[in-house]
Amino acid sequence: MSQQYDFGMVGLGVMGRNFILNVADHGFSAIGLDTDTAKSTALHQEGSGKPVKGTTSKQEFVSSLKSPRTIMLLVPAGGPVDAVIEDLLPLLDKGDLLIDGGNSFYTDTNRREKYLSEKGIHFMGIGVSGGSKGARFGPSIMPGGPKDAYGIVQPILEAVSAKVNGDPCVAYLGSGSAGNYVKMVHNGIEYGLMQLISETYDLMKRGLGLTNEELHEVYARWNTQRLQSFLIEITASIFTTDDTLASGKLVDAILDRAKQKGTGKWTSQNAMDLGTPVPTIDMAVTMRELSALKEERVQAEKLYGTTSAISGDKKAIVDQIEQALYFAYIITYAQGLAQLTTASEEYKYGLELETVARIWRGGCIIRAGLLEHIRQAYSKTPDLANLLLDETTAKEVNAVQAATRQVVSYGVTSGIPVPALAACLSYFDAYRSGRLPSNLIQAQRDFFGSHTYERLDREGIFHTEWE
Amino acid sequence: MSQQYDFGMVGLGVMGRNFILNVADHGFSAIGLDTDTAKSTALHQEGSGKPVKGTTSKQEFVSSLKSPRTIMLLVPAGGPVDAVIEDLLPLLDKGDLLIDGGNSFYTDTNRREKYLSEKGIHFMGIGVSGGSKGARFGPSIMPGGPKDAYGIVQPILEAVSAKVNGDPCVAYLGSGSAGNYVKMVHNGIEYGLMQLISETYDLMKRGLGLTNEELHEVYARWNTQRLQSFLIEITASIFTTDDTLASGKLVDAILDRAKQKGTGKWTSQNAMDLGTPVPTIDMAVTMRELSALKEERVQAEKLYGTTSAISGDKKAIVDQIEQALYFAYIITYAQGLAQLTTASEEYKYGLELETVARIWRGGCIIRAGLLEHIRQAYSKTPDLANLLLDETTAKEVNAVQAATRQVVSYGVTSGIPVPALAACLSYFDAYRSGRLPSNLIQAQRDFFGSHTYERLDREGIFHTEWE
Repeated sequence: MSQQYDFGMVGLGVMGRNFILNVADHGFSAIGLDTDTAKSTALHQEGSGKPVKGTTSKQEFVSSLKSPRTIMLLVPAGGPVDAVIEDLLPLLDKGDLLIDGGNSFYTDTNRREKYLSEKGIHFMGIGVSGGSKGARFGPSIMPGGPKDAYGIVQPILEAVSAKVNGDPCVAYLGSGSAGNYVKMVHNGIEYGLMQLISETYDLMKRGLGLTNEELHEVYARWNTQRLQSFLIEITASIFTTDDTLASGKLVDAILDRAKQKGTGKWTSQNAMDLGTPVPTIDMAVTMRELSALKEERVQAEKLYGTTSAISGDKKAIVDQIEQALYFAYIITYAQGLAQLTTASEEYKYGLELETVARIWRGGCIIRAGLLEHIRQAYSKTPDLANLLLDETTAKEVNAVQAATRQVVSYGVTSGIPVPALAACLSYFDAYRSGRLPSNLIQAQRDFFGSHTYERLDREGIFHTEWE
Repeated sequence: MSQQYDFGMVGLGVMGRNFILNVADHGFSAIGLDTDTAKSTALHQEGSGKPVKGTTSKQEFVSSLKSPRTIMLLVPAGGPVDAVIEDLLPLLDKGDLLIDGGNSFYTDTNRREKYLSEKGIHFMGIGVSGGSKGARFGPSIMPGGPKDAYGIVQPILEAVSAKVNGDPCVAYLGSGSAGNYVKMVHNGIEYGLMQLISETYDLMKRGLGLTNEELHEVYARWNTQRLQSFLIEITASIFTTDDTLASGKLVDAILDRAKQKGTGKWTSQNAMDLGTPVPTIDMAVTMRELSALKEERVQAEKLYGTTSAISGDKKAIVDQIEQALYFAYIITYAQGLAQLTTASEEYKYGLELETVARIWRGGCIIRAGLLEHIRQAYSKTPDLANLLLDETTAKEVNAVQAATRQVVSYGVTSGIPVPALAACLSYFDAYRSGRLPSNLIQAQRDFFGSHTYERLDREGIFHTEWE
């Protein structure tokens, strides 16, 4: 029986397989394509009893889909996406919709949309966050591309997405590569938050000597309060997970070398192209790189000694660390959202930041209770240049400012590295400086390179012969 | 009379004009080409009495040069370089040498070398640092490209370069785009040092209330000690320069919005591609971006209040700031040099870091007394992975570690932003941590994305079902 399926998925890795099962759970029939027989068979087995089929035949796949076809790709970013497109293209009809659900670089999405629109095929780049579990039971979905094409797939995406108070964590975000771009910055924020949490862990472990059990309790408690978020939740769980290959907890056996797949790096690099500061994300990317230098670090420790403990009332210090992490969460979201504001202007995405905050509240890796406050800030002032300029946010930040300074000082004094926490505070202190010492930099540039300068008291471009 | 000139220069802006006059001062005849009559005339006038000529005719220019021709371009990076090459190409002969002396992006240099070598033209990318005064009286010159071609221009470059104890600040660095790459990282370090100096200025001005006269004295004194460097020297001068349009010193009238031309950004972006951490340079780039947000900063200051003074013995605190800046200088060079080490492996430049440190000792913007120590470290251990692993450097760093922690704490506590100083300390503390909390990040990644992890106690790649 041909043309019976509502939805097609290319790429049946764990994300693709889980996503298609999620689609089927919501009453849509779906067919999956993967040249790897094991993967299409796995879908067949896992989808038993559901309107789901797996195949290795692209002909069967394409001819089994209702017209206009809705086909989503969950294959590795880069060459594989282009290869799948070229492979399917001869079999498609005008009006069909291709959706790239991977972490594609935004310029690739722009290129593909242009290429396919010339052939009458709709193309959308859609960010999907939530990991394999999110894909299965409700991810956050960030769609961008031609708005009319979104209508074709909207019912399915709204059905499968995570819900917050019944509100689906998906919404049309903007034209072109808006979806991939928002997902990229989502991941940049994710890098920042993960680095920050790891620094609080280091402060409490190396600095305060907390045990894994105590660490579990701290993060579990924080997750019931204003820091409530997916990353805090899983951190709490991590400290209870036993090592099955040795005694103790698994976290202590894991090599301290953090890998990356590139989206954090893209966020930082593109922020620099846009001229929008995201120092916390930069630092998180950089610290993953530094963690890779394990052998050098071990050598350096011999030359430079180790850290010292943080002295004082443990309970009070843990409370200060909670305040500092809350401060840093706000700053990190502020940086990422400011980057989206700039990118939306530069790339004409037409993003609404309230919508972005809204669909990030559930399903995705950076979901957090805080995002509801952020959504409200952008709802109140849609063209807010920076979250820090929102008055309610300012009250929250000011309430934890003093503790944050204390916590960064603990790191600085004890020698426990707090790169991202310190970057958050530096960003904040520079951002709230109506006058920065950058006048000296302009003077230096004019001194040695005749690069000119502007003045505070009058318009114009000036140059001085300094000597 | 044709074919009489030893050296040709295309682009007679202030850098090109000064460079050609420098060439002529050393007994080489030189001809300059610029389509702008005012510029070729200016060269004519300034070069009166020297073996120098300016022209607007490319035919005259090319036919007046001795064979094989040596032609240097000092035109804006990007399109203009390609335009000049295409313009001259029909007039050149096999064996001629074209030298790009601008801040070209290294991949452009690779492309041009390949393109021109297919036509039998030698092409070199050469970094030139020292500003307009350096170009006139002795810059640091960083040549890369085909080694045999370097022989053609070596006598001229050695003659015009800065000298340190009679040693020319120029040496063949490596193949391909090695020269442009080394110059790019030079500029990245320059961004870092300038940001660091501006932070010490802020600490002493906003934090300690030093006057411009006192600031002049401090930097002038530092310039006679271990911080001796061009950037400290000009900083001292800046605080004595009067404002000619208003009362007071000029530095106080300059708008605190630091501009950039892109080489610092390239350094950071490329370091991220290489996976080599340069957080101080990243932060310096980011802070130039943040300085541009003047209106937002003024608005934020109203919401978040201002900084507080640093209390204590001023003289002692200034001494601590000197120690922190020395610490930060070492860290910043360490980061840039480590990037060069990684880049040299990745791009097969064959760089010798001792040579790089040697030719940076004079002429260039980042020249500093410290570079002789750095040169010695790499002379002793040519394959040093990081300057911080040199034992002599370790002694220097350990001697100023405590003061640095104190100074960063002053910034953190008083609210005066110390982003680059803090980034130096964070880098140091992370680099000397044999064990970082990055195990938690790997646990999180495996938890939500099945990204796997390695273990401390055994080989292999592992994955855990965490829940």
